[in-house]
Amino acid sequence: MARPKNAITPTRTENFPEWYQQVVRAADLAENSETRGCMVIKPWGFAIWEAIQRDLDGRFKATGHQNAYFPLLIPLSYLEKEAEHAEGFATECAVVTHHRLETAKDPETGKTKMVPTGKLAEPYVIRPTSETIIGAAFSRWTNSYRDLPLLINQWANVMRWEMRPRLFLRTAEFLWQEGHTAHETKIEALEETQMIHQLYADALQDLLAIPVIMGEKTEAERFPGAESTLTVEAMVQDKKAIQAGTSHYLGQNFAKAQNITFVDRDNKEQHVHTTSWGVSTRLVGTLIMAHSDDDGLVLPPRVAPQQIVIVPVTPKEDSRDAIVTACETLAARLREQSYGNEALRVHVDKRDLGGGVKKWEWVKKGVPLRVEIGPRDLEEKKVCLQRRDQAPNEKSFISQEEFLVSAIEIIDDIHTSLLDRARGFRDENITECADLSSFEKHWEDSNPNPGWLVTSWAGTREEEEEISKRLKITIRCLPIDRQDEIETPCFMTGKLTKSRAIWGRSY
Amino acid sequence: MARPKNAITPTRTENFPEWYQQVVRAADLAENSETRGCMVIKPWGFAIWEAIQRDLDGRFKATGHQNAYFPLLIPLSYLEKEAEHAEGFATECAVVTHHRLETAKDPETGKTKMVPTGKLAEPYVIRPTSETIIGAAFSRWTNSYRDLPLLINQWANVMRWEMRPRLFLRTAEFLWQEGHTAHETKIEALEETQMIHQLYADALQDLLAIPVIMGEKTEAERFPGAESTLTVEAMVQDKKAIQAGTSHYLGQNFAKAQNITFVDRDNKEQHVHTTSWGVSTRLVGTLIMAHSDDDGLVLPPRVAPQQIVIVPVTPKEDSRDAIVTACETLAARLREQSYGNEALRVHVDKRDLGGGVKKWEWVKKGVPLRVEIGPRDLEEKKVCLQRRDQAPNEKSFISQEEFLVSAIEIIDDIHTSLLDRARGFRDENITECADLSSFEKHWEDSNPNPGWLVTSWAGTREEEEEISKRLKITIRCLPIDRQDEIETPCFMTGKLTKSRAIWGRSY
Repeated sequence: MARPKNAITPTRTENFPEWYQQVVRAADLAENSETRGCMVIKPWGFAIWEAIQRDLDGRFKATGHQNAYFPLLIPLSYLEKEAEHAEGFATECAVVTHHRLETAKDPETGKTKMVPTGKLAEPYVIRPTSETIIGAAFSRWTNSYRDLPLLINQWANVMRWEMRPRLFLRTAEFLWQEGHTAHETKIEALEETQMIHQLYADALQDLLAIPVIMGEKTEAERFPGAESTLTVEAMVQDKKAIQAGTSHYLGQNFAKAQNITFVDRDNKEQHVHTTSWGVSTRLVGTLIMAHSDDDGLVLPPRVAPQQIVIVPVTPKEDSRDAIVTACETLAARLREQSYGNEALRVHVDKRDLGGGVKKWEWVKKGVPLRVEIGPRDLEEKKVCLQRRDQAPNEKSFISQEEFLVSAIEIIDDIHTSLLDRARGFRDENITECADLSSFEKHWEDSNPNPGWLVTSWAGTREEEEEISKRLKITIRCLPIDRQDEIETPCFMTGKLTKSRAIWGRSY
Repeated sequence: MARPKNAITPTRTENFPEWYQQVVRAADLAENSETRGCMVIKPWGFAIWEAIQRDLDGRFKATGHQNAYFPLLIPLSYLEKEAEHAEGFATECAVVTHHRLETAKDPETGKTKMVPTGKLAEPYVIRPTSETIIGAAFSRWTNSYRDLPLLINQWANVMRWEMRPRLFLRTAEFLWQEGHTAHETKIEALEETQMIHQLYADALQDLLAIPVIMGEKTEAERFPGAESTLTVEAMVQDKKAIQAGTSHYLGQNFAKAQNITFVDRDNKEQHVHTTSWGVSTRLVGTLIMAHSDDDGLVLPPRVAPQQIVIVPVTPKEDSRDAIVTACETLAARLREQSYGNEALRVHVDKRDLGGGVKKWEWVKKGVPLRVEIGPRDLEEKKVCLQRRDQAPNEKSFISQEEFLVSAIEIIDDIHTSLLDRARGFRDENITECADLSSFEKHWEDSNPNPGWLVTSWAGTREEEEEISKRLKITIRCLPIDRQDEIETPCFMTGKLTKSRAIWGRSY
């Protein structure tokens, strides 16, 4: 079948990474900037992030968390307090060393230019994450068990210097939320990490139509300074894994490094147990890779900046006004309806452009449902529907009244169809593996991304790191719902174990 | 009259700056941090900012603006492109010079510590404002007049190194929104700045109950690189001025420095006309200083994190459950009501603390309306109301049903009473002045902040700077609605002019 001339070049199978860049460009989501590794998030891309923010913010508040804001800059001596943490981020820290600029003459060219001056006694690091600076505040805020739990979230920008940036997936600066909580006991802190783990899995499914594998990271893959890291792992269409969100139990590591103590119910001084958890603008990259097709972006309806775009088709001057009016009346009536606690987002595209140009713009921008009204539809009181989860030329006609009654259902059906498709794809591409030779063969296959493998696993950290490096894979997680009830031999070491691991290539 | 023992020390008249710090502390709004000049915004303070954000974001979107996000770091060479702009911010720029940390041995102590490494070829400045980095994007986005206007807003953190920080009012890092727009013509760009100017004035009045003086800045007080700066100026209770929001017409200055061009309707290449405009977390400081009293914070209802707090008064065990249930039922019914497009925010304070402790906590946190239900109220189906715009001991009793019908009206009346009080105070403290000697006498008075003066004004920039420096005052603005229709002599130069200026001391 011939490809539509407006489709994305290359296709996913031809060159997945390049296809991704072209989808981002065609949908006008983001672009590279003058600042190395940093992106500009354009309005259509930012509106997706805003929808994610609104939803997650509601979930955090409903579970008792409050937003606050902490400094962008962390004194170097604070970052250093938790040694493993500092080491984990040392190679990617942007460092502020001066606080002024001064005009100076360039000795070579003789031209004046601005140079940094006002050297700081202590350098600051732009937060790569905020455990240390928020820990400093927590140490002031906790005196008694009555002050606990502290349940804080921050929406912020963070910076991790990236050598190989990629829009949304891996950028030097990114936007995220970081939850930070402090608790009286280990049990309560662990319950918090699990509650957030489930919250993330639910949000990815309900909001982004992305099914995830929930599991725990191995020691080698944990957050620097954490005792345990829970993760939600998404499979995208090239069968690579994306770590979409993590929830860490930090034990008393940060509490001890920063002296976060409280007087407990027995009047003894104790260190708190802390957690941290976050998701970032990486979710936008994840949803693009999970759902989009060779025609461009495909947006799950709940995060689509516009869920329905209505295009008046006006070939004749004499019916133009009536058609435009019909479109606007329809839009107004749709906007009175709610989907997922928000009014339906409906746009009428009245621009003076050809119908094909408009259609393809909205296809590439991933709008879930396109609606056309032309002269004949007007006469017959019908609308022409085109769903983004179907081929660009598929269409159906229903009466306007019927559409008004069923619009929410259609939108929700698009969400479900994306979710089902992603779940089917993921499940097809996770296979069991019981022996080392077929394991090695799987990854040495000519296909660069041959899907995930599930194995029994009883190796050491060193054994994991050796095989990961050799085969360019990682243990994505020890999946919670796939642990064995009986012991089976580890595919590598032969040791009997109930523990099972999922392996994959990843972003 | 004796002061309540829980009131703020010192009072406003005793020491206004110290009173401010104590109000911020008592309401748990924010605190200083480990990072020089940067604050931690605590949950109660951040919730006020979130309410301001929600309201303004709606106004921006309703007037056709879209949100986007641009890099935190600006290459030094970009900042330098607009010379006046660069010079204006040079003394307060945080500069990133390195992108890694490395462990090294301190030659003096022999201990290991982390030091910056990975020196950047070109330093980056943490944005003090984003005209230059957003201008770089605009130069890519504008090809034809069809691409205009560009109407972009960004919610972001910015950094201006501050030597004398003060919570909310003047901090090295602050949160703000910055609008950036590009237009075909000067007229359109000026209309944009005026529209936003009015939008800010309306928002301050409707949301923060702060009446403002709208005017234009003189050349000496303009934004670095602007052709004209419009401002909304608020008077707070020590009669100082706070510049609460500004809207700049940037002419073609940034367009020329950054080559932001488009092909116009006559097929000629032109430079765009740009604007920028912003308000920041400084608004939180402004509202504190505008409304709070010697008992603590007073919040205008629309930005109060909780608009109504209901306190069950339960002296006897046997009626406790019934009272708590009555409070929760009342809260649930109140939450079904809307004020300013948002559901009423109602909290039931069930903590096991003394009634006086709870009452004073909510007084100091500025909650607009406190409601108590005790055993007798329960019997009589009444509630006890205490308004934050009245003395802490004033109370009134009305039936629960009557309260449910009038709650929104009472809340709105509190808004109006704060606004009226602030307007009255402001108008009392702006006086006309026609001659230099009484002008000088006014400022040399023993009262450090003697209110604002309005004068005719025809001085030069040099004359303005001389008298400003000598008397420690500034022209706050040339107020739009107070320009003369006939010429009168300038109080200083005697030259005839229709132009009039408002002078004051400021934050």
